[in-house]
Amino acid sequence: MQITPVTAGRSPRVLIVGAGFAGINAALSLRGAHAQVTMVDRKNHHTFQPLLYQVALAVLSPAEIASPVRTILRGQKHTEVLMGEVVGFDLKARNALLKNGSRLEYDYLIVAAGSTHSYFGHEEWAVDAPGLKTLEDAIEIRRRVLLAFELAEKQVLENAPHPTPLNFVVIGAGPTGVELAGAISDIARHYMTRDFHHIDPRQARIMLLEGGPRVLAAYPEDLSASAERQLRDLGVEVRNNTRVTGIEPGVVLVGEERIAAAVIVWAAGVAASPLGKMLGAPTDKTGRVMVDAELNIPGHPEVFVLGDLAAREQDGHGLPGLAPVAIQMGKWVAKTITRDINGEPRKPFHYFDKGTMATIGRNKAIAQIGKIHLSGVIAWLAWLFIHIMYLVGFRNRLLVLTEWAWTYFAVQQGSRLITGDTNLIGWGNAD
Amino acid sequence: MQITPVTAGRSPRVLIVGAGFAGINAALSLRGAHAQVTMVDRKNHHTFQPLLYQVALAVLSPAEIASPVRTILRGQKHTEVLMGEVVGFDLKARNALLKNGSRLEYDYLIVAAGSTHSYFGHEEWAVDAPGLKTLEDAIEIRRRVLLAFELAEKQVLENAPHPTPLNFVVIGAGPTGVELAGAISDIARHYMTRDFHHIDPRQARIMLLEGGPRVLAAYPEDLSASAERQLRDLGVEVRNNTRVTGIEPGVVLVGEERIAAAVIVWAAGVAASPLGKMLGAPTDKTGRVMVDAELNIPGHPEVFVLGDLAAREQDGHGLPGLAPVAIQMGKWVAKTITRDINGEPRKPFHYFDKGTMATIGRNKAIAQIGKIHLSGVIAWLAWLFIHIMYLVGFRNRLLVLTEWAWTYFAVQQGSRLITGDTNLIGWGNAD
Repeated sequence: MQITPVTAGRSPRVLIVGAGFAGINAALSLRGAHAQVTMVDRKNHHTFQPLLYQVALAVLSPAEIASPVRTILRGQKHTEVLMGEVVGFDLKARNALLKNGSRLEYDYLIVAAGSTHSYFGHEEWAVDAPGLKTLEDAIEIRRRVLLAFELAEKQVLENAPHPTPLNFVVIGAGPTGVELAGAISDIARHYMTRDFHHIDPRQARIMLLEGGPRVLAAYPEDLSASAERQLRDLGVEVRNNTRVTGIEPGVVLVGEERIAAAVIVWAAGVAASPLGKMLGAPTDKTGRVMVDAELNIPGHPEVFVLGDLAAREQDGHGLPGLAPVAIQMGKWVAKTITRDINGEPRKPFHYFDKGTMATIGRNKAIAQIGKIHLSGVIAWLAWLFIHIMYLVGFRNRLLVLTEWAWTYFAVQQGSRLITGDTNLIGWGNAD
Repeated sequence: MQITPVTAGRSPRVLIVGAGFAGINAALSLRGAHAQVTMVDRKNHHTFQPLLYQVALAVLSPAEIASPVRTILRGQKHTEVLMGEVVGFDLKARNALLKNGSRLEYDYLIVAAGSTHSYFGHEEWAVDAPGLKTLEDAIEIRRRVLLAFELAEKQVLENAPHPTPLNFVVIGAGPTGVELAGAISDIARHYMTRDFHHIDPRQARIMLLEGGPRVLAAYPEDLSASAERQLRDLGVEVRNNTRVTGIEPGVVLVGEERIAAAVIVWAAGVAASPLGKMLGAPTDKTGRVMVDAELNIPGHPEVFVLGDLAAREQDGHGLPGLAPVAIQMGKWVAKTITRDINGEPRKPFHYFDKGTMATIGRNKAIAQIGKIHLSGVIAWLAWLFIHIMYLVGFRNRLLVLTEWAWTYFAVQQGSRLITGDTNLIGWGNAD
């Protein structure tokens, strides 16, 4: 379905909400279009989420995986960048309401506000088991992981009577949980030992708790099994069919069992941004907006919902909340708006699956490219190559490559800085 | 004066409080000594303070100017690193009290806890006019500076009736104040304009308020005058003999005058760490501990006070609170303890002034090396060279050099990320 711009002769105003993969790619691909584009985001930066866990584990610095939205889009004269929070929509009057009260009018609205953690109704768990979605999350997890090692060393030095066990519990064995568990193991066994004199790395236990029957459930069973083997090689204790029933400071509850944990990370649940519900269209149980083949909500060919916020089936399967889906949606919507402007008919969105991959640790990964299943070093090299290629900005690619080479060959880590609250966490005699 | 280790035959325990320039250099120089060294700091990292302003102005990332203390000292088997806060001393029993209640015994105590901001009794000003001493301070100032530009752009786009003037007020024209004012000007005039479509860089006013008669008062008058000229070339409004009488949100008061400011930075006063007073020795009016020619407090040849925390005169002048003084003191104390252990007599501390320099902006600096006074590009190149050489760690030197070359030649900036609170500051219609 095609719509005609409201005012003939004027180039249409495209409002993009959210500077994630979908939004940024939509904005970049609208570069040549006869449209006035406005990008609104609460943050000033686009984050390369697939590498967030590397910031959380102190391998990379925040600036290496994030770029200011303005800098990414500065080559585009007809694109405005606004830092602000959208809190509502008036679909009839075609405008979005900002938190400061001002309204942004549009002819086309692209909502790509992404997703956030879901604690399945236990939001109180967030304090003790943070998730990993933003740079701030990554810095917070980094702080907790580094402080856990500091506390462990301190307790040995001070002969603490009841030292905190150096346990790391990751809840949820999706891609993020697997990456985090593998990376914590790498850090504990390879990097940390050289900095600490008293911690025995074998003391560090890394537990990965998964509610379902297998890790990386979105992958075929053989890759899933390979991933679990690779995790065990790294010393990660994988526990499938393990449902967390409670979280307290420093303790994860699994039924009657109480697992002591110096650090708990939540990688189990995802909920769509609340902006989805504000569109007034049907949503699924995680709050994602049901969109048609043109990624529109019913009756509004001028309103698109993209990325993690969109619920869309293809060939009988729901499209996954992955960067490639969001990127393709972003590019597609830009083409579709250009077609509208040129008076050409729209084509439905179709996701082309080039393959997916998940990293597990140093030299360890799995990859699925069509019918080809890869494991181990080859999958890891493919993962490395693709992630560097997709990083926004040449400067970042160069910095990350340098940092990784340094980390890999010097077996030394990048940016183990603790900023913010320096109180040692845990209980006992922390100060 | 020489002391004998408490227990003959056992290598003496050296406790170092503070991992700044003095403490780190003392620890590194004790590498070969027959001593058990313990380093305690509240943070896990040593910060290269002379480059903090570059983090505050989003040129460098925190990880590029800071290194974990453990990593710096990891080559030394007999050196322990503890993250903890010292809250008191028992000089008689020879131990230091940590916040968590445990005590660290010593044979030698080195107190190098540095200094913090002083608001001359107006601590309430700290909220609106943060100072620059720690990485957290730098990240906070970066957040405010970047948000000020975001707000200015937003107000133009939204036709705000009373836009916040894009004024930056730096209070205090010592080295930090001068660096900050010059760097803000560089940013506003060179870097920011390419990212923003609506802000006129000439709107940005940078004011440097100095209570005394001239900028960089520690330097000879001709260099001081040159620095002021170079600042004016950069468009900085220098106001000498200007005493701030009050600070309110977004306003600096100078008597009756009210100066509107999007960002206020405090670089006017320094106070010694409160740990100085806890030693029970005489202190000067800024809280620095008066030390003798062997950097000891009266009656305690085993207690040394170094760096910014020490008040020491030499040739009729007080030693300045600069990195070179702290570094030389740190190295000297290590030698002195080694002499004690070897039964050799002590030699008094003598600061050797190799020259001092202050940077003002791109290609702009002043330097004093003995009787030679340098200004402009040559002084700036010397500054660049020396600051890279003194950065701890080869990796950091490499990263900073790459970043600077990139910034300089591409006229593009490094790490303009806003993390933490993303509320736009100021008043009016900020959200």
